[in-house]
Amino acid sequence: MTVLVVGSVALDSVETPFGRVDDALGGSATYFAASASHFTRVQLVGVIGADYPEEKLLELVSRGVDLSGLERAEGESFRWRGRYGHDLNSAESLETKLGVFSHFRPKIPAQFRTAKYVFLGNIDPRLQLDVLEQVESPKLVACDTMNFWIESRRDDVVKLLGRVDLITLNDSEARQLTEQVNLVKAARWIMERGPKTVVIKKGEHGAFMFHGDRVFFAPAYPLEAVFDPTGAGDSFAGGFVGYLASTDDLSEANLRRAVVFGSVMGSFVVEGFSIGRLLEVNKDDIAARLAEFHSLVAFDAEVP
Amino acid sequence: MTVLVVGSVALDSVETPFGRVDDALGGSATYFAASASHFTRVQLVGVIGADYPEEKLLELVSRGVDLSGLERAEGESFRWRGRYGHDLNSAESLETKLGVFSHFRPKIPAQFRTAKYVFLGNIDPRLQLDVLEQVESPKLVACDTMNFWIESRRDDVVKLLGRVDLITLNDSEARQLTEQVNLVKAARWIMERGPKTVVIKKGEHGAFMFHGDRVFFAPAYPLEAVFDPTGAGDSFAGGFVGYLASTDDLSEANLRRAVVFGSVMGSFVVEGFSIGRLLEVNKDDIAARLAEFHSLVAFDAEVP
Repeated sequence: MTVLVVGSVALDSVETPFGRVDDALGGSATYFAASASHFTRVQLVGVIGADYPEEKLLELVSRGVDLSGLERAEGESFRWRGRYGHDLNSAESLETKLGVFSHFRPKIPAQFRTAKYVFLGNIDPRLQLDVLEQVESPKLVACDTMNFWIESRRDDVVKLLGRVDLITLNDSEARQLTEQVNLVKAARWIMERGPKTVVIKKGEHGAFMFHGDRVFFAPAYPLEAVFDPTGAGDSFAGGFVGYLASTDDLSEANLRRAVVFGSVMGSFVVEGFSIGRLLEVNKDDIAARLAEFHSLVAFDAEVP
Repeated sequence: MTVLVVGSVALDSVETPFGRVDDALGGSATYFAASASHFTRVQLVGVIGADYPEEKLLELVSRGVDLSGLERAEGESFRWRGRYGHDLNSAESLETKLGVFSHFRPKIPAQFRTAKYVFLGNIDPRLQLDVLEQVESPKLVACDTMNFWIESRRDDVVKLLGRVDLITLNDSEARQLTEQVNLVKAARWIMERGPKTVVIKKGEHGAFMFHGDRVFFAPAYPLEAVFDPTGAGDSFAGGFVGYLASTDDLSEANLRRAVVFGSVMGSFVVEGFSIGRLLEVNKDDIAARLAEFHSLVAFDAEVP
């Protein structure tokens, strides 16, 4: 199955203790698509300005990402500039210029409207809801959000919960949204409002998936060198939803495997700037890291 | 096999958002012993003052903890008073009165000197080294330490590394000791100085075990209500080393299982004040939670 993703397509300038990059491909839809393209075909809806280096997107096209929903608008592209310190845990945003993204109104092309798997990247929840009016009968709608929307459009975020099957958000966002410090309680709060599945991402500390009354946990891979954490969450989502779409299997066993594929893709993207590593790795790399994740947590519960 | 533990035996007064307790059993050796007693016999070496409510230790004795190495000294017992806020991540120390603990010089009784499994709880590294002069040929020496000793007695902590097989420490301590932000690098730094096995505890984010070139990770159990985090690290160590001693098997597979038994015991102790929950739970509870830990991380790496 194909995945439809709606989100930002940006140009990121990032400084980490290991180097810097200017105007590199960024944005939630970009990371998601680059990651998910390892598993299935991707339909991308977003907006870029006249200044966007479109040739850089060709590699995504060659990987099966359909950009016919990428709108070209008058004005400047969304640009973000950030810096990470040595702990790499949180970015200091130095500059955010929304440009054409500030007037983005997602228009889902007719041929994308029958998508069975939909990922609503982190954009205004009113736009996320609007996308849902434009798609026909998706089998799985997943969304992401962020602190900015939880603060400024809380009611819309809660309304969105009633319309999605699955949400991914990070631990601080889950606490902020639910006003529950405890993540088990936070997940239940969210599930009571709609989603059957809640994935709470804890960055370098891994991710929980709550599904009904079951909990699954996947650690982040203990990398020796994290180069640039930008895009880890969207790459996680790309691996997660991309794998689910490719298998078209929403069983709990497959959801668990999908979380690990998400973690695998998140572990790759942080090894380089922008989507660089996502474009480098191949099926063998992904399979090898999946096996490493398995070995990382494997133990025999049968006491000899 | 029996485990010898040397550490503090204290009286803790703790305030959490869920209640408070005064002069409850505490200290690294106490938590370790209560936890390890579920797996094997424990020999405890420590010191208490004349004011210690010894009758409260009888329950440990009835569980197979040998207190013949517990010294009674003139003066007041070690007392700690602390408070946790809503996030329960770190205690605010309100008062620390070392009392008789400030003059503690561990004397290992003759019948304890042949112990094969030794845990050096978090005390002055010079005393930890001194204990090692008093034991004969242990099969496994494990130790813990803390930021205070890393700051004030760094050379002795490093010297200790050359004498132990295994160290447990938390992530911030590992970073402080090694001056490496990355935990993989921190673990390697430590292993280069002696220990074959390094367990880095991340509190609510679980624990890594580095063993040769292998890494194992066990999450913390996602409890809905953490009542009091005091003693989680020592209870982890008690389950970990206690299980190893009971099986007398230092294979990697058994070390992995031991980390999970440590996590199981850590997950119980935080459900109540002091060692209360450790005294309540039984073999079935432990087996059930071990199974829950297994289910928490289990996934099938074989893509169908």
